[in-house]
Amino acid sequence: MRTYLDCIPCFFRQALEGARIVGASTKQQKQIVDEFARKIPGISLEASPPEIARIGYRLLMAVSSKGDPYKAIKQKSNRIALRLSGKLKDRVSRSKDRLLTALELAIAGNIIDFGVKNNLNVKAELKKILAEENRVVHKKSVFHYPEFKRTLKGAKNILYLADNAGETAFDRILIEEIKKKYSDKNICYAVKAKPVINDALAEDARACGIDRITRVISNGTDAPGTILRLCSKEFKRAYNRADMIISKGQGNFESLSNEKRPIFFLFMVKCPVVAKETGCKLGEVVLFYNSRRGLIDEYKSHF
Amino acid sequence: MRTYLDCIPCFFRQALEGARIVGASTKQQKQIVDEFARKIPGISLEASPPEIARIGYRLLMAVSSKGDPYKAIKQKSNRIALRLSGKLKDRVSRSKDRLLTALELAIAGNIIDFGVKNNLNVKAELKKILAEENRVVHKKSVFHYPEFKRTLKGAKNILYLADNAGETAFDRILIEEIKKKYSDKNICYAVKAKPVINDALAEDARACGIDRITRVISNGTDAPGTILRLCSKEFKRAYNRADMIISKGQGNFESLSNEKRPIFFLFMVKCPVVAKETGCKLGEVVLFYNSRRGLIDEYKSHF
Repeated sequence: MRTYLDCIPCFFRQALEGARIVGASTKQQKQIVDEFARKIPGISLEASPPEIARIGYRLLMAVSSKGDPYKAIKQKSNRIALRLSGKLKDRVSRSKDRLLTALELAIAGNIIDFGVKNNLNVKAELKKILAEENRVVHKKSVFHYPEFKRTLKGAKNILYLADNAGETAFDRILIEEIKKKYSDKNICYAVKAKPVINDALAEDARACGIDRITRVISNGTDAPGTILRLCSKEFKRAYNRADMIISKGQGNFESLSNEKRPIFFLFMVKCPVVAKETGCKLGEVVLFYNSRRGLIDEYKSHF
Repeated sequence: MRTYLDCIPCFFRQALEGARIVGASTKQQKQIVDEFARKIPGISLEASPPEIARIGYRLLMAVSSKGDPYKAIKQKSNRIALRLSGKLKDRVSRSKDRLLTALELAIAGNIIDFGVKNNLNVKAELKKILAEENRVVHKKSVFHYPEFKRTLKGAKNILYLADNAGETAFDRILIEEIKKKYSDKNICYAVKAKPVINDALAEDARACGIDRITRVISNGTDAPGTILRLCSKEFKRAYNRADMIISKGQGNFESLSNEKRPIFFLFMVKCPVVAKETGCKLGEVVLFYNSRRGLIDEYKSHF
């Protein structure tokens, strides 16, 4: 999707919140805001939001004294999510449709996102998700599960695009479930190459044991999404080869929504602009199949 | 008060929302955002928020094809507020402390603010205020009413700084109540000289009949607050002569909070930055006496 003018105030907010997390002084925070402001007039709104957000995050990283300022946050997210894994797996085991439950939990894990809400209490939020009365299943309006099942059945090469650290533990449960159901799938889990916010890196995939169940690759970038022209050859090969792409998070949706590939976007709607773009409500969980344009509208016309 | 870095994303949001209200095309909206972004690095955070917001609003006015893009909104606010006047006066008449009730209503009228929330449903919001169970009196933490009464009693020249159109009808009730209690007061009602958002102009004061009960002057500026160095000589004379200043709205608080004059700030806390600055919660109503520094902290130490 393209960037909306409404994204601009939000970019400044994210830059400022990020600047504080990377430990920038007030003077440095002002410098980051000024530098980002200088870049605004040169920005094309045809670029996707993650492409522009990346400019802001690069300014942050340049002033950060810590190598990876979100490292501790990511490690904590991994620990908390892993600690919850037992309960999550129990829920999958108990459910009538194991794949659906694993899928729902994988989307629910997308609540771990410091780009959108930096003061998120991960543990409390996840507990909410686990509470039976708040099951995400109850409040979805775009959920292409039949298409997901059908595509999964026929797919050979699946590319799974990670989003945030911590969420990786939820992804693992879905991948395990897919592997349990179909032993013939070749799944590849793609993470970011360099730190950007709390996006998962290879070390997060390893911390959650993804590397023990499937192949982990890097997309070669530090963008908070998947900007294909910046991605590594290895990633693009996996991307082009895949006959099913499972894409986690809003950033990946924002950067890949115009692609004509068999992509299933799994995310929580976290901002008004994406709510408008998808026709969903803020906070809603979405499983959106992108194989052909207009499907989302067609789907919603039934409601 | 100075401008916080957190105000910057909000300035962009306001510029964008305002651009839409003035009828700017998407291209013009982008131009406004770009032009405002270009000015950011040159801005000193020592300036008050209304000083910086004024830059944005001037960019809006430059592209506006309508002379006063908020005119219809302001007229509507005046009409709705005037229509409610009877009920408001009844409430004052029925109350044990008429001055207090008139004061509370004058602050409640500050909910009419398109700078902060442009899609405000004025009628619905005012109805809420009028509902007995939501009386503003129940949720205040800084409310210097004893100081207000004492200062009012001894004051001869009172300068009343208007905020928004519509709110003027509420101001009239307070001014009438003051005049009823004390016949010797010389009250002067100051409005903006040129359009800025929905701030009251002389025509709004007239529409609400303020000119029939007291003198109306202009402050000589188009700033969304009171920036003394820009104000007219006439205004500054009234300002310096006043032995009590009743200042309405957050914009006037933001621009005058550092002044050492006997100012009573009456406003609703409408943003997190002002909430932090005052130690109040968002949405809270405040009557804050500024006569000497530290009073707000002293007051709050009792809680």
